[in-house]
Amino acid sequence: MKAAGFKISRTLRCKNVNVPGTLGKLTTAIGKVGADIWNVETVHIGHHYTIRDIDVFLDSERHLEKLVDEISKLSEVSLLQILDNVLEVHKNGKIRMASTIQINSLDVLRRVYTPGVGEVCSLIANQPNWKYAYTIIPNSVAIVTDGTAILGLGNIGPVAGMPVMEGKAALLQELVGINGIPVWLNTTDPDEIVDTVVRISPTFGGIQLEDISSPRCFSIQARLEEELSVPVMHDDQQGTAVVVLAALINACKLSKVIFQEARIGLVGLGAAGLTIGKFLMQYTGKPVLGIARTEGSMHRLEEQGGIRSNLDELMQNSDIVIATSGVKGLIKPSMVRKGQIIFALSNPYPEITPESARAVGAALATDGKTVNNLLGYPEIWRGTLDARATKRSPTRCTWPLQLQ
Amino acid sequence: MKAAGFKISRTLRCKNVNVPGTLGKLTTAIGKVGADIWNVETVHIGHHYTIRDIDVFLDSERHLEKLVDEISKLSEVSLLQILDNVLEVHKNGKIRMASTIQINSLDVLRRVYTPGVGEVCSLIANQPNWKYAYTIIPNSVAIVTDGTAILGLGNIGPVAGMPVMEGKAALLQELVGINGIPVWLNTTDPDEIVDTVVRISPTFGGIQLEDISSPRCFSIQARLEEELSVPVMHDDQQGTAVVVLAALINACKLSKVIFQEARIGLVGLGAAGLTIGKFLMQYTGKPVLGIARTEGSMHRLEEQGGIRSNLDELMQNSDIVIATSGVKGLIKPSMVRKGQIIFALSNPYPEITPESARAVGAALATDGKTVNNLLGYPEIWRGTLDARATKRSPTRCTWPLQLQ
Repeated sequence: MKAAGFKISRTLRCKNVNVPGTLGKLTTAIGKVGADIWNVETVHIGHHYTIRDIDVFLDSERHLEKLVDEISKLSEVSLLQILDNVLEVHKNGKIRMASTIQINSLDVLRRVYTPGVGEVCSLIANQPNWKYAYTIIPNSVAIVTDGTAILGLGNIGPVAGMPVMEGKAALLQELVGINGIPVWLNTTDPDEIVDTVVRISPTFGGIQLEDISSPRCFSIQARLEEELSVPVMHDDQQGTAVVVLAALINACKLSKVIFQEARIGLVGLGAAGLTIGKFLMQYTGKPVLGIARTEGSMHRLEEQGGIRSNLDELMQNSDIVIATSGVKGLIKPSMVRKGQIIFALSNPYPEITPESARAVGAALATDGKTVNNLLGYPEIWRGTLDARATKRSPTRCTWPLQLQ
Repeated sequence: MKAAGFKISRTLRCKNVNVPGTLGKLTTAIGKVGADIWNVETVHIGHHYTIRDIDVFLDSERHLEKLVDEISKLSEVSLLQILDNVLEVHKNGKIRMASTIQINSLDVLRRVYTPGVGEVCSLIANQPNWKYAYTIIPNSVAIVTDGTAILGLGNIGPVAGMPVMEGKAALLQELVGINGIPVWLNTTDPDEIVDTVVRISPTFGGIQLEDISSPRCFSIQARLEEELSVPVMHDDQQGTAVVVLAALINACKLSKVIFQEARIGLVGLGAAGLTIGKFLMQYTGKPVLGIARTEGSMHRLEEQGGIRSNLDELMQNSDIVIATSGVKGLIKPSMVRKGQIIFALSNPYPEITPESARAVGAALATDGKTVNNLLGYPEIWRGTLDARATKRSPTRCTWPLQLQ
């Protein structure tokens, strides 16, 4: 989907005269400046004119200005308003802590509050396992971040990325009925992060680490796994790796590539890349090739049993290429080998677009919009919580094997 | 209300033959064993019998057995089932983290998740004040406890009291539309509590400390007030003190007692008692009398300008008595002075029942079921968050003065 590459979306409220062909002229004008149209909703039909909300995807504010200019040339159309439908949906945040009971009488109050609640507390105090029946704890996951690696935006600190964490929480509830509780830390010190998460852990059935920068994320997760009796998942690592491995299993079937025999190359060895490598090496029993910007990342790959390479060599020698470098356009079409499987996963801009890769002979190519960890983390948590798991070792790919 | 003193409630599902007077016999039997009836709901009307759910309040399981025996003597009534309506309402917890948007299409997903969400993050990164418009932070309060002083149950640890915190959160949402986020700490060390709360504070517009035992709670709150730029309230202290002061202002009007001239005695100087004293001394400009079990509490009262006393002396010399001792029946009717205002606030059993106090001449008497901090904390937070307050000093009674 072309819209995937766009950065902003807007809703144009347009008043069109009731002359056949007007909508055609308007949509043509939008197409002319290279904007993409999503929904068209008719909000009012009058005798002389029709008002429509047209959702468009655009590259930038500058792009929007060009579009406005183009529409202004049409005498049949008045642009009444430009609505920011993204901001609209974020107004006052995207989640709320709701009561599951309507507290509308003294009778209900006496049950949910004193004196009734004391009975439930005593029950759990005597037999802690009753927490599974009478609290939200076993169905709650803390979404913990220090804000050091938010989307492609980087270290924007512990508040600006809140919309991401709220989005993750909203999806957890909407897709699998889990309470996601965003917890922002105003420390980036690994020791303090570990201490803090350990101390707040009794409230949760699991801990999801989010957008914590590499390589700090590796030791933070390892220590939390060690200290906690609830499972810990770093979405950028295990979440992504599960989804990539599952997608790769399918991709190999579709492309008639024999997974266990394929040579695999990793372009980028951050939190995602390194853990994908770990999963793939365990799955295939064979080393992967890898390249990264820093010596530290290369070293970590070798520690795991991978082989350092360079970009040209890697592209020449790999049947499967998985790129998580964050560098737009890093893979040139000339580097692509015929019959290769290419996952260019960096968001919002991939290392090579699927279209370009396929055009030069890739057997299968996809990007991070399609192979996205949203496909993984909600159901992974549903399964983990339902199983009342106490550990989920980051070093063993238990989950993807079950997905096979 | 008599039911307030009972400890458990149950719903009796009874099948009564359709003979006039049967419900009369049943309710008489319930009254005979001293149980209290709340709602009576008719769930089925048949030709020959009627099925009714009768909510009853009881003292204990033993009390319930007596009631079951009594009902079994009635040939017209079959007791079909005994439902625990308190446990029922607590099943799977009482709150849930809900999405404010139904995520039911790719279009919505693209707004709440990538790529839309990046736009909102960038906005906040550039101008942090946008968090007030586009995140839940300014409307969220952490309900933090270490589980050391849960209701009258004491130190039952950081999970058994979860139903209390969920109840507080449910009420915050139902009464004033605030997101209450329970956070349980698995440490009782004051330094660690302070560190942890400071580190998770960016996620919240305010911190409500709950059921943290005295005297640790005083220094924990003071240090948090010092370190944080969001308001901190310890419900057991300031929440209770606000409600007591407001109730006392009204009680004085009703009893023709001149508040500023009244001598005030405090029975019990824990988190609630000591802070009530602090508020009252600031309000009246005069010292209060006080008694407590520990020398430490007596000392803290004197530090605040109060005067140590003993129970008999205090009862004789006080126009207003406020008891928060936790000791059932501590105040004997013989101690009550004619015309006294008595707030016996310990839950679930007051130091003297309002009925007994009034019977021996108290001008006005009430208990902790009526003068309850539920009357305070939700609206206090609504006001605090709406004002975007950054501090709420625990040493100044700003709030109650505004309530006057």
